[in-house]
Amino acid sequence: MTGFSTLADLRRHCQQLPSPDLDAVAAVRARQAQLTKPLGSLGRLEALVAWLAAWQRREMPRLDRVEVVIFAGNHGVTANGVSPFPASVTAQMVANFAAGGAAINQLATLAGAQFRVVPLSLNQPTRNFVEAEAMDEAAFMDAVHIGYESVSPGDDLFCPGEMGIGNTSSAAAVAGALFGGGASWVGRGTGLDDAGLARKQQLIAAALAHHAHVQDPLEILRVFGGRELAALLGAVISARHKGVPVLLDGFVCAAAVAPWAKLVPGALDHIQAAHVSAEAAHRRLLETLQLDPLLDLGMRLGEGSGAAVAIGVVRAALACHSGMATFAEAGVDP
Amino acid sequence: MTGFSTLADLRRHCQQLPSPDLDAVAAVRARQAQLTKPLGSLGRLEALVAWLAAWQRREMPRLDRVEVVIFAGNHGVTANGVSPFPASVTAQMVANFAAGGAAINQLATLAGAQFRVVPLSLNQPTRNFVEAEAMDEAAFMDAVHIGYESVSPGDDLFCPGEMGIGNTSSAAAVAGALFGGGASWVGRGTGLDDAGLARKQQLIAAALAHHAHVQDPLEILRVFGGRELAALLGAVISARHKGVPVLLDGFVCAAAVAPWAKLVPGALDHIQAAHVSAEAAHRRLLETLQLDPLLDLGMRLGEGSGAAVAIGVVRAALACHSGMATFAEAGVDP
Repeated sequence: MTGFSTLADLRRHCQQLPSPDLDAVAAVRARQAQLTKPLGSLGRLEALVAWLAAWQRREMPRLDRVEVVIFAGNHGVTANGVSPFPASVTAQMVANFAAGGAAINQLATLAGAQFRVVPLSLNQPTRNFVEAEAMDEAAFMDAVHIGYESVSPGDDLFCPGEMGIGNTSSAAAVAGALFGGGASWVGRGTGLDDAGLARKQQLIAAALAHHAHVQDPLEILRVFGGRELAALLGAVISARHKGVPVLLDGFVCAAAVAPWAKLVPGALDHIQAAHVSAEAAHRRLLETLQLDPLLDLGMRLGEGSGAAVAIGVVRAALACHSGMATFAEAGVDP
Repeated sequence: MTGFSTLADLRRHCQQLPSPDLDAVAAVRARQAQLTKPLGSLGRLEALVAWLAAWQRREMPRLDRVEVVIFAGNHGVTANGVSPFPASVTAQMVANFAAGGAAINQLATLAGAQFRVVPLSLNQPTRNFVEAEAMDEAAFMDAVHIGYESVSPGDDLFCPGEMGIGNTSSAAAVAGALFGGGASWVGRGTGLDDAGLARKQQLIAAALAHHAHVQDPLEILRVFGGRELAALLGAVISARHKGVPVLLDGFVCAAAVAPWAKLVPGALDHIQAAHVSAEAAHRRLLETLQLDPLLDLGMRLGEGSGAAVAIGVVRAALACHSGMATFAEAGVDP
């Protein structure tokens, strides 16, 4: 289906970057100059419409089909006490998503988005990356494929999110292995206290030392990442190839796509960062990836929640672009 | 109706500040601790719900009736070329609002808000404050009353906006007179070039010198402000008294309410700043007023547009609070 089955195939696929549709962008810019407002006065909203047009490859973008998809995985590293919550909470929250009781359910409904949760072998946590490789190649590629297949060419906007007790440890390790800085990427996750934070920092430093020989960006994700991070990467690669812009949630999502950015400049051009979270290293990771977050609301929940709030901003941008009168139509002096 | 008719009455009314409902806030906090998320992980969204509860005086706030109201006025100072647009555009844009063609029409509809525009004697511009007082007391109080009456006790959220070619000049002068710093509050408004900006700065400096004896905050608004700024102030005072939280748009709106903050500490506690705009001095004015903007999207359109986008964030906050399951309901370990 996806045209790649090994990690080496995936690496080649990562290099093939569809370009933006610059004719569609030009059409958007031409219309923006005619709408009843001073040029540029809608700021980032105008840039968002151009971005939608570039990657949807449509002169008049649309947001009829917006998808929020949560990938969920379990992590062997939780054996080391990196979270105040037990690993069993991952499956409990997946059930909560299915029942409609989580934050993301409310936010997706409000945003007019379709919502799905994709649990990834929750009964088989990845191996503890402090002492082993989290996934072998087969497990990694399975998760990548599941993510890849979760995006449809009919989607107008894709918002991947994640759930996985322990996955900010994975994300911090991935960032440290890709960009250096050791355990400086470690934060409190869902709410570690000072002692827990110190323990988490020590563990990540030890894990980075243990796997210091792993240098390839995709291998780094296989060795430190959870299944949900691998699926996220697969989804975001898929979106680029299927003409679907991506609104990216928080720190874990950014870490999941970071290997691709390290591998191929411009790989994330079809992505907007929905928000910067309260997780300490998220802002620095976004800066490293040259992603400028839309929102800064101190959120730190994951599960796609920041992306879902930002859907409203993207809808606002498109509503202005598609609904406003031109100077000529309104009889306003330009 | 409003219990005050002179500026001296208004000053007394400004001192009478209804307090927040702390019982309602406590109820919100208690529920937030039970919802299926780490405590505090929704960040600013959790604070927004507490704020709604405090000022609506309801343990479970609601957003059934959200109002976006644009106050429009014309300014004598436009005779000095402070805007690239002629004053006639104010009335043209009011017609565009009525016809549904402006940005705010699209944004208010998307946000599920009711929309009204309140034109204030557009055929009678305020006097040019560079050489005269913009309004006499009667004209000022008329505009304040119109704003005051525009808020209903049945409103759940009030979002005032403004339209008025030349009104960033008014706003800059008000800020300079209130807080010092001379013409440093002057920005490009709808898009002045460098020469226009220099001319605007000189004019504001001259106007501030001419009226240097005016020290009372409300008198400052009368002398420099447009009718739409006076109406905005009236509306925001009214909202405090009627139990209606306020989402405040851009630089002009902040300048309109600034006199009240100067007069009475805590006067703006029922206000959230919707966004920080690209108008140069807006961020500094918000800091001066101790308002922390929800959004930072480089918008600089006015007409309530930033507030209307932020309604979506407030709705997201309330959707989580009212719709999420508790740990007990969902069977999730707290």
